[in-house]
Amino acid sequence: MTKLFLPPGPVPVPDFVREAMNRPVFHHRTAEFGELVHDVFTGLQYLFQTESHTGIMIGSGTFGVETGMYSLFRNRDKVIIINNGKFSSRWVEYAEVLGLEVLELRLDWGEVPTFESISDLAGPDIPQGIILTHCETSTGALTDLEPLALQLRDTWPDICILADTITSTGSLPFYLDEWGIDAAVTASQKALMNPAGIVCFGISERGMSRLQPTRPGDFANWYNYVEAARSLSFPYTPPLLGIYGIQAALNHIRQKGLPAIWNQVHRCSRRFKQEIEKIGGSVCGTFPSDSLTAFQWNSGTADELQQHLLNRHIELAGGQGIWQGKILRMSHMGSSATMPIVEEVLAALREYSPRN
Amino acid sequence: MTKLFLPPGPVPVPDFVREAMNRPVFHHRTAEFGELVHDVFTGLQYLFQTESHTGIMIGSGTFGVETGMYSLFRNRDKVIIINNGKFSSRWVEYAEVLGLEVLELRLDWGEVPTFESISDLAGPDIPQGIILTHCETSTGALTDLEPLALQLRDTWPDICILADTITSTGSLPFYLDEWGIDAAVTASQKALMNPAGIVCFGISERGMSRLQPTRPGDFANWYNYVEAARSLSFPYTPPLLGIYGIQAALNHIRQKGLPAIWNQVHRCSRRFKQEIEKIGGSVCGTFPSDSLTAFQWNSGTADELQQHLLNRHIELAGGQGIWQGKILRMSHMGSSATMPIVEEVLAALREYSPRN
Repeated sequence: MTKLFLPPGPVPVPDFVREAMNRPVFHHRTAEFGELVHDVFTGLQYLFQTESHTGIMIGSGTFGVETGMYSLFRNRDKVIIINNGKFSSRWVEYAEVLGLEVLELRLDWGEVPTFESISDLAGPDIPQGIILTHCETSTGALTDLEPLALQLRDTWPDICILADTITSTGSLPFYLDEWGIDAAVTASQKALMNPAGIVCFGISERGMSRLQPTRPGDFANWYNYVEAARSLSFPYTPPLLGIYGIQAALNHIRQKGLPAIWNQVHRCSRRFKQEIEKIGGSVCGTFPSDSLTAFQWNSGTADELQQHLLNRHIELAGGQGIWQGKILRMSHMGSSATMPIVEEVLAALREYSPRN
Repeated sequence: MTKLFLPPGPVPVPDFVREAMNRPVFHHRTAEFGELVHDVFTGLQYLFQTESHTGIMIGSGTFGVETGMYSLFRNRDKVIIINNGKFSSRWVEYAEVLGLEVLELRLDWGEVPTFESISDLAGPDIPQGIILTHCETSTGALTDLEPLALQLRDTWPDICILADTITSTGSLPFYLDEWGIDAAVTASQKALMNPAGIVCFGISERGMSRLQPTRPGDFANWYNYVEAARSLSFPYTPPLLGIYGIQAALNHIRQKGLPAIWNQVHRCSRRFKQEIEKIGGSVCGTFPSDSLTAFQWNSGTADELQQHLLNRHIELAGGQGIWQGKILRMSHMGSSATMPIVEEVLAALREYSPRN
């Protein structure tokens, strides 16, 4: 029996992506490669909803956000960082490594920032940037990015807004240009349904103006990726088969259309979250994201429940960090976003529910 | 007709690697993942010929060497860097980004360093480290690493030797422990016959003692990879399918045995280089590596010759940087290292040779 593999990333790699990655390797100093990356850059513009620049890099999601920080901010720049979970805590750590001046808004896990809390934290200071995690994968909490970004822009017109959209773009509404986001990063193993190892970004004109050359050999500087992209090339040997995989996913997303995908993710998430509450579970946090459901169970331990599901060939992820052993997390991204999957998991959960 | 794809990386991905990468995604917080990475770390110990630590990261080859520099050297450390081609010039650039004190030994393309030239450059200074490129892929020049490393160690017992072995380990003799190399980096798209996107390192005890924690969220610090490896885990979402691919290549290499592979690469390289000289070409440099052949042709342009070969479904790489349009480069790594391939390319070259 095939296992339903449903952690909120890495997600299963569908056959159409695997087939795309099974093409032969060819050389990257060719017109053929130029056409491939041009198609990918265009697909990424659609994904991030931007008419500005996009980029693709070998790397993990962490690499993507942290090189964004490295590329957009200078030593001693004052940046606000929202820390509301395991992933966002990394951005605080890395900002300290970079020597940035960090204004950390530390929230309880599951919570999301309000404009007021950010404004109070900054006081009279004028921050150069802010680093936000749209959906914090460790808790499933969704930051309401649109009004927040607009308020931030009203207050600090020059602020550079860097958003970790790893578990959001391609699953949830996200509009880089409309919302005035300056840089957004997503990773291959989420809505793009690819193996982990590729990271993509979108960057506004304001963001572009902050990029500065260090040296062409500096792998961490987005400037080098954007410069190479102008000639449809890559600053080092490109991950060709991985780029094929991303191209296949982006074509799939363009064909289906983002609104249809967002709606499908939303319907699955809504159904799952509503039922969970009825049959013995509770969804974590007050602003749960649609891209995953993080939930507790009202009886037994999360480990027991996880094992119960595994016995039924369903694999969800457990909690991380301080929530380890306390919650389970189920993906609604990519091929997980189907009603039959939602119903199958609910059926297995009902068997476990003491209220049954 | 299938094209013979023979640039010196990326190399074609053989079926056994593709099949390994076609396995389902599973979760990385499991005993199964621990077994996988344990097997890979052991295979990497064989590849680098070390009993010390090994690591695997998402990244390009450039990422591998530059994060090695970031992890092993501190601000204002004095490091010698040998710059003898396109790739080694990146290490100079990045050392400047890091703020290291660089003693650059700049050689003509195709040349390799002698101990004397390094010693003269350093003078009375005691360098903390040296960064060497074992085989410079842009020129095919091979640095005679064994005697050089032993002399460096004799002269400066505490020096940290970081070797770019991207186009050498798995193709040419390399012994991390025996030669006293402190850190070596290789990339997936060369002798490991995988898609670009994974980078592996071996590190000596002396190298280990230089690693320092920055913060756990710092993606560039090898310390975090080595720490995670102790519990057979990964500092971020691992590139599972890529790790499967590396495992398959390492198993293949262990099964065939490094001596047999080195010999096969050497025989192909020797035959190709000897014949080239007879039929109208000349091999670049005085110390050519066996992992590739970089060569000029005595008539016509390199571009014309490249096109002639393409018409016969054979793809070699051209030159890079200052050697663009001047040379061709042919891989003898991985599945390219067979006599029938060598003979097929030679036959196509003979057809072009005006001496025929």
